Amino acid sequence: MTELAIGIDGGGTSCRAAVADRHGNVIGRGKAGPANILSDLENSLLNIVESARQALIDAGLAAETIASVASVVGVAGANVTDYGQRIKKALPFAEGRVVTDALIALQGALGDGDGIVGAFGTGSVYNARRNGRLNGIGGWGFIVGDQASGARLGRDLMERSLLAYDVVRPASPMTEAIMAEYGNDPESIVEFAHSARPTDFARYAPIVFEYAAKGDAVAVGIVTDAATAIGESLEALLWPECPSICLLGGLAGAYEPWLSERYKARLARPKGDALQGAVELAVKLLHDEQRGAA
Amino acid sequence: MTELAIGIDGGGTSCRAAVADRHGNVIGRGKAGPANILSDLENSLLNIVESARQALIDAGLAAETIASVASVVGVAGANVTDYGQRIKKALPFAEGRVVTDALIALQGALGDGDGIVGAFGTGSVYNARRNGRLNGIGGWGFIVGDQASGARLGRDLMERSLLAYDVVRPASPMTEAIMAEYGNDPESIVEFAHSARPTDFARYAPIVFEYAAKGDAVAVGIVTDAATAIGESLEALLWPECPSICLLGGLAGAYEPWLSERYKARLARPKGDALQGAVELAVKLLHDEQRGAA
Repeated sequence: MTELAIGIDGGGTSCRAAVADRHGNVIGRGKAGPANILSDLENSLLNIVESARQALIDAGLAAETIASVASVVGVAGANVTDYGQRIKKALPFAEGRVVTDALIALQGALGDGDGIVGAFGTGSVYNARRNGRLNGIGGWGFIVGDQASGARLGRDLMERSLLAYDVVRPASPMTEAIMAEYGNDPESIVEFAHSARPTDFARYAPIVFEYAAKGDAVAVGIVTDAATAIGESLEALLWPECPSICLLGGLAGAYEPWLSERYKARLARPKGDALQGAVELAVKLLHDEQRGAA
Repeated sequence: MTELAIGIDGGGTSCRAAVADRHGNVIGRGKAGPANILSDLENSLLNIVESARQALIDAGLAAETIASVASVVGVAGANVTDYGQRIKKALPFAEGRVVTDALIALQGALGDGDGIVGAFGTGSVYNARRNGRLNGIGGWGFIVGDQASGARLGRDLMERSLLAYDVVRPASPMTEAIMAEYGNDPESIVEFAHSARPTDFARYAPIVFEYAAKGDAVAVGIVTDAATAIGESLEALLWPECPSICLLGGLAGAYEPWLSERYKARLARPKGDALQGAVELAVKLLHDEQRGAA
């Protein structure tokens, strides 16, 4: 085995990889297509490996070096049935670990410390590390979960716009803007909603925050409900000595002003991103292997 | 044209028809397959006509009589773009009208009187007739509407069960029963939810009412929210002299005890069902045509 570690963040839009020396200094980076292991395992594997090859080439190394590195791949779905094991077996690394996207995000944000990480993008999910033990909640998808996700904010927006159209709930500048976008035709909204994927709903999340910041009553209601849901989930994980709470994901900054002081007081900037977390775990793996081999 | 009127209730599970004389006395009934005009127009038309033919045969008349009757067909989607016109053109009746399922349900429940009708089954929808003018709200489907539908009750149940599993919200005997049904595996619930049609979620509605009646805190919360949503929709339609509110659909009776006194005080038994409403409208059409021909 070489003295190299590769961390890979296998995401739904792209795979990113970084190769580091045994001290964790990143010497090359690579990128490839998406990894959605539950829906397309074969291409996910190809993209995971390709991102690693690109990182090695970026570092001025031969792509064949891949067979002698230690690697940690973080990818959503790694904990679902035997997917993690299947990926591990198919990968070409000398030593490899496949972990959840949540774990590399937590490692990146908190380093080796304890704390809570909440991630808010298309979905919403929470992970805590307390005395080194991991505990994750949420992330069940927007149909029956992900209460603070972009997808739920967008879905709520559509629902409130239809209620305002029916004069069941008060309209607001935001609901009127949405109705105008859909030609004031509720059927068009229903048609959109019935074919919309979570990302389609989530595209409306920034609009909700924008109107909420201006005091739009409907937007404030939607964001307040979501912030309350965040509080309930943080409360389920929080313990008195918890040193920090990190908010991650595209909506993290937008939610911050809406959180209650109880959580705001513990907010900390993430130390690094998920790729950084994967690299850290890969370097640990390299050391463990070398200790094991010694 | 004969002296016969046929009313047809074109539903998502079956088409029911009744043939009546000019005084509205039903002399034959028929049944055929479903009418889902938005997803399968061709078979819907075949089933609508077949139910009418069966009703004529049941009345001891030749099936060919169909070409000389007046008919009113009530079917969901009749108000969507040009679907109503397309069905009307394709039907073999001497004179035909195609109206929404909501209109025949309202006519059946209220007769010619004013009032409000709320229908609660897999979906939820409200219609009012005030001084003869119709106004309908809701019925936008459970993804972004139908707040008091069976589908939403079932979806809420799944969501609350996952929140209880994550210890974000309190568990209850109901959430524990659902988790047990799914092998205490949240992934199984998520899998169900992601492939569930509205009717699949709605199958859980009676369970929610059952637990609510026993005082289960989570069930009471879900039903109370839905009853509040019913109140908001009724409020949007209500006027001081409104003579009656009729609740229709499979969940009507279950919701009744949960409504506020303000609405309970106006509740009235429906005069008849949707098929009865279609027959009444068909008889009116027959008279109108005869007056027109005189």
